[in-house]
Amino acid sequence: MNSFGQIFRLTSFGESHGRGIGGVIDGCPAGLEIDMEFIQNELNRRKPGQSKITTQRNEADRVEFLSGIFEGKTQGTPIGFMVWNQDQHSNDYNNLKDVYRPSHADYTYIQKYGSRDHRGGGRSSARETIARVVAGAIAKLLLQKQGIRIDAFVKRVGEIELQKSYKDIDLSQIDSNIVRCPDAEVAEKMIARIEEAGRDRDTVGGVIQAVIQGVPTGFGEPVFNKLHADLGHAMLGINAVKGFEYGSGFEGTKLSGSEHNDIFIKTESGIRTKTNNSGGIQGGISNGEDIYFNVAFKPIATLLKEQHTVDKEENETVINPKGRHDPCVLPRAVPIVEAMAALVIADHYLLNKINQI
Amino acid sequence: MNSFGQIFRLTSFGESHGRGIGGVIDGCPAGLEIDMEFIQNELNRRKPGQSKITTQRNEADRVEFLSGIFEGKTQGTPIGFMVWNQDQHSNDYNNLKDVYRPSHADYTYIQKYGSRDHRGGGRSSARETIARVVAGAIAKLLLQKQGIRIDAFVKRVGEIELQKSYKDIDLSQIDSNIVRCPDAEVAEKMIARIEEAGRDRDTVGGVIQAVIQGVPTGFGEPVFNKLHADLGHAMLGINAVKGFEYGSGFEGTKLSGSEHNDIFIKTESGIRTKTNNSGGIQGGISNGEDIYFNVAFKPIATLLKEQHTVDKEENETVINPKGRHDPCVLPRAVPIVEAMAALVIADHYLLNKINQI
Amino acid sequence: MNSFGQIFRLTSFGESHGRGIGGVIDGCPAGLEIDMEFIQNELNRRKPGQSKITTQRNEADRVEFLSGIFEGKTQGTPIGFMVWNQDQHSNDYNNLKDVYRPSHADYTYIQKYGSRDHRGGGRSSARETIARVVAGAIAKLLLQKQGIRIDAFVKRVGEIELQKSYKDIDLSQIDSNIVRCPDAEVAEKMIARIEEAGRDRDTVGGVIQAVIQGVPTGFGEPVFNKLHADLGHAMLGINAVKGFEYGSGFEGTKLSGSEHNDIFIKTESGIRTKTNNSGGIQGGISNGEDIYFNVAFKPIATLLKEQHTVDKEENETVINPKGRHDPCVLPRAVPIVEAMAALVIADHYLLNKINQI
Amino acid sequence: MNSFGQIFRLTSFGESHGRGIGGVIDGCPAGLEIDMEFIQNELNRRKPGQSKITTQRNEADRVEFLSGIFEGKTQGTPIGFMVWNQDQHSNDYNNLKDVYRPSHADYTYIQKYGSRDHRGGGRSSARETIARVVAGAIAKLLLQKQGIRIDAFVKRVGEIELQKSYKDIDLSQIDSNIVRCPDAEVAEKMIARIEEAGRDRDTVGGVIQAVIQGVPTGFGEPVFNKLHADLGHAMLGINAVKGFEYGSGFEGTKLSGSEHNDIFIKTESGIRTKTNNSGGIQGGISNGEDIYFNVAFKPIATLLKEQHTVDKEENETVINPKGRHDPCVLPRAVPIVEAMAALVIADHYLLNKINQI
Repeated sequence: MNSFGQIFRLTSFGESHGRGIGGVIDGCPAGLEIDMEFIQNELNRRKPGQSKITTQRNEADRVEFLSGIFEGKTQGTPIGFMVWNQDQHSNDYNNLKDVYRPSHADYTYIQKYGSRDHRGGGRSSARETIARVVAGAIAKLLLQKQGIRIDAFVKRVGEIELQKSYKDIDLSQIDSNIVRCPDAEVAEKMIARIEEAGRDRDTVGGVIQAVIQGVPTGFGEPVFNKLHADLGHAMLGINAVKGFEYGSGFEGTKLSGSEHNDIFIKTESGIRTKTNNSGGIQGGISNGEDIYFNVAFKPIATLLKEQHTVDKEENETVINPKGRHDPCVLPRAVPIVEAMAALVIADHYLLNKINQI
Repeated sequence: MNSFGQIFRLTSFGESHGRGIGGVIDGCPAGLEIDMEFIQNELNRRKPGQSKITTQRNEADRVEFLSGIFEGKTQGTPIGFMVWNQDQHSNDYNNLKDVYRPSHADYTYIQKYGSRDHRGGGRSSARETIARVVAGAIAKLLLQKQGIRIDAFVKRVGEIELQKSYKDIDLSQIDSNIVRCPDAEVAEKMIARIEEAGRDRDTVGGVIQAVIQGVPTGFGEPVFNKLHADLGHAMLGINAVKGFEYGSGFEGTKLSGSEHNDIFIKTESGIRTKTNNSGGIQGGISNGEDIYFNVAFKPIATLLKEQHTVDKEENETVINPKGRHDPCVLPRAVPIVEAMAALVIADHYLLNKINQI
Repeated sequence: MNSFGQIFRLTSFGESHGRGIGGVIDGCPAGLEIDMEFIQNELNRRKPGQSKITTQRNEADRVEFLSGIFEGKTQGTPIGFMVWNQDQHSNDYNNLKDVYRPSHADYTYIQKYGSRDHRGGGRSSARETIARVVAGAIAKLLLQKQGIRIDAFVKRVGEIELQKSYKDIDLSQIDSNIVRCPDAEVAEKMIARIEEAGRDRDTVGGVIQAVIQGVPTGFGEPVFNKLHADLGHAMLGINAVKGFEYGSGFEGTKLSGSEHNDIFIKTESGIRTKTNNSGGIQGGISNGEDIYFNVAFKPIATLLKEQHTVDKEENETVINPKGRHDPCVLPRAVPIVEAMAALVIADHYLLNKINQI
Repeated sequence: MNSFGQIFRLTSFGESHGRGIGGVIDGCPAGLEIDMEFIQNELNRRKPGQSKITTQRNEADRVEFLSGIFEGKTQGTPIGFMVWNQDQHSNDYNNLKDVYRPSHADYTYIQKYGSRDHRGGGRSSARETIARVVAGAIAKLLLQKQGIRIDAFVKRVGEIELQKSYKDIDLSQIDSNIVRCPDAEVAEKMIARIEEAGRDRDTVGGVIQAVIQGVPTGFGEPVFNKLHADLGHAMLGINAVKGFEYGSGFEGTKLSGSEHNDIFIKTESGIRTKTNNSGGIQGGISNGEDIYFNVAFKPIATLLKEQHTVDKEENETVINPKGRHDPCVLPRAVPIVEAMAALVIADHYLLNKINQI
C-alpha cells in the first residue's frame, strides 16, 4: 500500500516530524550511473524555503543512499535512501493535537487507525513526496538513456493562466523563475498572485501541465494499466490533487469524433499523427507522439486564518494556526509531478521489454 | 496486467470477435448471496442494441458462471464467468485488416505486439468491459450489504449539460430514460443531440458523474492508493476516458483555501462537514460524506465517415467504414463507471478490515 | 490468492464437480506458436483413467481456449481456457456431505469459509491442477524456444526406489511405461506395489524427481525469490506434497563444507562446476548447471476403507467410501510437477530480461 | 523481488559491507505495542560473535526505527528501520575481488547483473537476514496477542541428531545453550562437532525444526498459497537452505494412506485429530493442531581452506581465505527460521480476516 510500480517499484516510509523520509527502489536495472548532483538538484527543486513564495520551513533535505549503489552504479539490488528531518518545530503542533483541521487528514486518520502522529500531518504530510522525488530522479536518469524527457510547469495559478500550447514555449526555461512557469510575463503575475495569497494568510491552487517527449511506441498495457491510467493514478496520489486529464481532456469531449480523431500521416520519421488530441496514447499504448496532461491542485488546506472546527471530544471549537505556511504548492509540486511521471514511464519501459518472444 | 484490485481482484480476458469475454473474480468473501437477475440486469444496461441511440450490434450478452458459486452463494473460491460472443460479423472487418483506423488502437497494438486480432478491435474493443460489469455487479451486491450505494448518470453530452447538483436530482430515475440522465427535459435534448450525431455518421462525447453514498470513514490508503487515486485509475482504464476529477475538481482550483476548506461540524449523526469540496475524501481516506466525481469521455473514434489514414505498408489511404456505430458511448458507459467504482470500493472495504489490531 | 507468478501469471478457477476447471494466463509474450496437440498431450498425461494403475474416473479433459490466441499464435493478451467436467458422479458424494473425511480439506474449508462445495472435494480437488498443466504446457513451449527442457519422473513408490542418478537414465523414456519411471525393471516393481495398494483399497506415496536442463546463468532473484524458493513454493502448492529438496538436499547437510562445495573449472563451454551439489543454483540464481530437485508426495487421503471420523454436528461416526480411487497419485503428478516447474522458469526467464540497462 | 508477504509485507535492502541492512514493514495494523527490548533480543540471538561456536565478526547490530512507531505503538503506516554496519573489514575481501569462491553467489551475481559488490558477499550475504529478524520480531508481537507461539531449534548437526519428538522436549529451553538444541546432552555433542569443524577450518550443516502452536483453524489459501507452501517458500529463501518438509515429510511418503490419515476425534476442546501427520495443515489450511516442519541447511560455503577455482578472466586459480568464518550457521539461523515463519503466519492471520462476509 506504500509501494508504487510493478517492476520499477518504490516503497516509501517516514513522517513529517519523525526521523525523516525514506524509500526503497526495487527493480532498477544494474549498471545505471548515478549522478548524485542531479538527484540532489531535483530534491532542491522540491524543498521548502527555496524562494520567497514557498513555506519558510528550512530543511537541507540532503539525500543519503543506504544501499544498492556501488562504485557509482546501480547493482540491480534495492536502493535504500533517507532524507533526515531537521527543522521540525514539533511543538508548533501541540495545540493542534486534539482538533481536526478542516480539509486535512487529521479526522480520517484517527477514524482509520485509531490514533495518529499529529506532528505536522505525520504520514499525510506532503513531506512524504521527498521519497518520490528521489526515486523519480533515478527513473529520470534511466529514461534519459532512452532519450525520454519529462517536463512539468505551472500552467495556471488561481485564475492566472498561461494560454499557450507547450509547443510554443521553451521548456528549458521552466526553472528560470521561482514559480516555474516558462513565460516571464505570466510568471510575474502568478508570483504576485501567490504573494497576495501569502499576505492574506490564505492559499491558492491551480494547474500543472506535464509533457513527456521521446517515448517510443508500445509503452502501456491495454486494459487496466493503460499508460494514461497509470499516469493518472500516479498524479492523483500526490497530495492536494483533485483532477487529471490528458490529451484533449475535458474540453475535447465537446468535439465531434470527426474533429477529434488524429489522422495518421506518413512522414520522413515514419508514421505520425497530424493532430495529437490523443495525447500520445491510443488504446492505452504510446503511439510515439508527445504525451501531455494536466493536473489540478486545490488550494492547500493549511491556512493561517481563524477557522471553525471540531475537536476529538466532538466539541465545536476555533483554531487559529500560527507559524509558516505555503501559500501555493504548485512551484514545489512541479518536480513531484515529473518524478511520478518518471516512475510510471520507467515501469512501462521495463514492462515493454517482455511483450514479444 | 489484466487484473484489477488488491484483494477483491478481477482478471479479465477475451476479445471482441473471439469466443467471448470472460473473467475471474478472486478475493470475494464466502457467503454472499448471488442475485443472478441483478447481475444480468447490469449487463443489459451495458449491452448494445438496447435503445435507438446505441449501436445496433445485437448481443444477448448472457453471463454464464463457471465456478465459485454453490447453492446460490459465493464460496470464497474464485468466480469464473463467461459471456459468449454471438453477433460477430467478423467479415465486416476484413477490409480494415491492413489499415490503421485513426485514434484506434490498431497501430499501437501492432507496434507493441507485432501482430493483432484485427476483428472489431480484438482485445482493445470496449466489449472487454463486459467482464468489469459482471465483476462490478458482484461488488455491488457485497457493498449493498454494507449500505453502500453507487450511482452514475450522464451529466453532459457535447455541450448539453445537466446544470444541477446531484443532490437536487432523483438518482432513482437514472434508468427512466435511454440516455441515463435523470432529468427528463435535459435528457430529451441529449437524445436529440445523439440522434443528430448518428445521422451525421459521427460521434459525440461528454461527461458522466458518479455518486457513492454510505461509505463509512476509513476507506482508502494514505499514499499511493488514496481512495480517489484508485477511483481515478479505474475510470481512466475505461475505453475513451480522457479525464477524471473528484469533489471540487478542476473548477475548485480557482478558489482560495479559505473558501475551499470544508468546516467540520457536530451533528446528530456525528462529525460531518458543512460543505463537501473534498468529495468525501480527505488525505486519501473517506470521511463519511458523499463521494462524487466526473469522468470525461471523448467522442469515440469509430465513425462511418471517409477518413484519411495510413496502412501497414505505410502507404497513405482512405477508409470509409460501413455498418453500425455507436454515436455516443455515454449511456452504455454508465454501468461501466458504476462497476469500476464498485470494484474499487469493495477492495478498500476489504482492505479496511485489517487496519487495526 | 488463486494466481501464480509475477510476470508469466496463471489465475486458476473451477471445482471438481462444477462446470469445469479453467484458467487465465497473463503475461505470455506475443508471437508464440501454440501447438495444440502438445498441450492436449500434456493434459492426457495427467488425466484420470489413462492406465490400470490410476483412478477410473473417465474424463476426456479436452482443453478449449477462449481467448488470446489468433491464427495459431499468442497475441500478448490474456489466454483464457476451460476444461469442462463430464464424468461427475456428484451423487457419490452425498453421503459424505456432512462428515469430515480424515486428512482431507473438508473440515478446514468449513472452518475457513463457513460452507463448502462437498462434491468431490470441490475446489480442494486435485482436479484443479488441470489449469496448471495447461498453463505449464504453454510455458514449456516458450522455454523450448530457449533450449530449456523440463523432465520429471517417479523416483520412489513406497519403499521401491530408483537408485540411479538422473544422469544415468534415459529421460526420453519417462512415458515408456505407465508409472513414469524410466527404468523398466524398477517400474515393474512400482506398478506391482501400486496394484497391491489398489487391491488393499489403500494408497501409497513416494517421490518425484525433476530435472531442468538448458537454463542459462542468471535466472532467479537473490533474496526472497531465489530460484529454488520459487520452485519449492510451486511444488508445495501441489496437492499431497509434503516436502521439497534441491541439489544435495537433506542428505547433503551431512557433508562438510569442503566436501559439499562445487569447485569451478574452466571448460570448452565456459565456466562450469566439477560437481553439482548446488543443484544448478547458487545464491538463488542459476549457474548454468542442471537444476534438479525431489518432491515428496504423501499417500493420498482418499481410501476405500472404513475409517472413524466426526461429522458436522461433532458426532463421532464411521465412513466407508465406495467407488473409485487413485491408489497412487505419482504417475499422474509427473506432468503437474513439470508444469509448475515450467511456470516458475518461464516467469524468471521474463524477469531476467530486465536485470541490466 | 525484495519484498515478502501479501498484506504484512517486508521490503528488505542493504549489503554486508555497505552502510547497513534495512527494511520497511508495510501492512502492520495500527495499535500494536512495540517491545523494543524483545526486538533487540531477537537480533542478539542472530548476531555474530554471540558465542564461541559462531563467527567472531563483532557487530552490535542495534536496530534503529525510522518511521511508523509513535508513542510506542504502530500507526498503520510503514515501519522503516536500519541496522548500521560497523565491523566491516572490507579490505579482507580485496584479494577475493576477482575470483569466484566455490558455491558462493560471486559467479551468478556477475552473470546476472554484470557487476557485483564483492565485499563480503554484498547483497548475497546472510547479513541481509537482519531485516527478516527485525520484521519477524514485530510479526511475533502481533501473533503473541493471538496466542500464537513460534519456536525453532537445532535438531541435527552433521550426523548428530536429537531423536525426540518436539512434544517430548521443553521448548522454553532452546536458548539455554549456545547451539539452541533444547536437550543438554545432545547439545553438548553438537557443540563438540561444531568446534571440530571450526578447528578443521571447515563447516558443518544440519536441520532446524520449527513448531508453531496456537494457530486457529482457517489460515492458508487453498491453491497456490497453501500455508505450508508459503512456509516452504519463506524457508527456502533463507541462505544455505536446501530442503523443507512439514508434518510427516519425506519419511511419511513411505506409509500407506490408512496409516497416514489423521483420524478426527471429538474432544473437550472441540474437533481434533488423533495423530498429526498433517503437520497442522490440511488442504493448505490450518486445522488447529500444531504446525511443525524441518529445514535443511547445507554446510556453508565459506571455509578457511585452500580451494581450486576460476577467476574473472576464466583462469584456474587457488584461493586460501583467511580471517573469520562460521563453522556452523544453525544456532544463529534459529531466530531467522522463527522470523520467517512469523512473517508467513502474520500475513495469513490478516488475510484470514476477509474470508467471509
